Amino acid sequence: MKTPLVLVTVITESLFKDKIIDILRKKGATGHTLTNAQGEGSRGSRAADWEGPNIKIESIVSPEVADAVLEAVSGDYFENHSIIAWTTEVNVLRGEKFVKR
Amino acid sequence: MKTPLVLVTVITESLFKDKIIDILRKKGATGHTLTNAQGEGSRGSRAADWEGPNIKIESIVSPEVADAVLEAVSGDYFENHSIIAWTTEVNVLRGEKFVKR
Amino acid sequence: MKTPLVLVTVITESLFKDKIIDILRKKGATGHTLTNAQGEGSRGSRAADWEGPNIKIESIVSPEVADAVLEAVSGDYFENHSIIAWTTEVNVLRGEKFVKR
Repeated sequence: MKTPLVLVTVITESLFKDKIIDILRKKGATGHTLTNAQGEGSRGSRAADWEGPNIKIESIVSPEVADAVLEAVSGDYFENHSIIAWTTEVNVLRGEKFVKR
Repeated sequence: MKTPLVLVTVITESLFKDKIIDILRKKGATGHTLTNAQGEGSRGSRAADWEGPNIKIESIVSPEVADAVLEAVSGDYFENHSIIAWTTEVNVLRGEKFVKR
Repeated sequence: MKTPLVLVTVITESLFKDKIIDILRKKGATGHTLTNAQGEGSRGSRAADWEGPNIKIESIVSPEVADAVLEAVSGDYFENHSIIAWTTEVNVLRGEKFVKR
């Protein structure tokens, strides 16, 4: 009934919403969920060098797609922008529909 | 201080909110958290055959309750509807209050 | 590319927002994300003895910071208040920026 898959979570500035969704699609995600959020965080040395309206994008994917998404998100494009991304191991109901054949 | 328990996450159309909460209660969950979300995803073969206002429902439960909730959610009722459900292993503060005796 | 870290999630009444953020900062978190949520839950024997506007606060931290945050949150201050806190093991992109040196 449950399939072990990966939840990819990306939190970033709202203006990157379409860019992230585009990455998810291209790398093989079959869907995603958006939530509005507010963030405050560090991009490096200072304690809190960005804050404001953020978006949280979540997608259930295979381990391979998760790695491809994270690699895309770690690329040059986001180097100087506020982005947080992580993966969580989850067990998904009807998991087969989240994996493209 | 921490108890290993299960986080059940259900994302579905807003209109199913009460139905899901009812399932959670009947299966033994002691509480839940609701967040508004937007979803886009696949129910099968097409790339994006539903999108719109969704609700994310989260509940910390025992492994047994988690399985019962997922089984209820996998039933006929939701067969033709957009629903995503998954479990995550978590460590919970004061975990005893999430398990009914 | 990915670093194993801990996602700390705290759900509580909105009025405790600043208190929780203060705890996160003091214990060493470098940032956090806020989401509005609605909660209903149990503080003990009754089925649903609180409900209303809640806030969900998430932060990616080291295991040591996670434990310190949970210990602070389990203290006397919140004894009679509605608070849920848990940790999840995650793999974080550019994880080094979430750990203070």
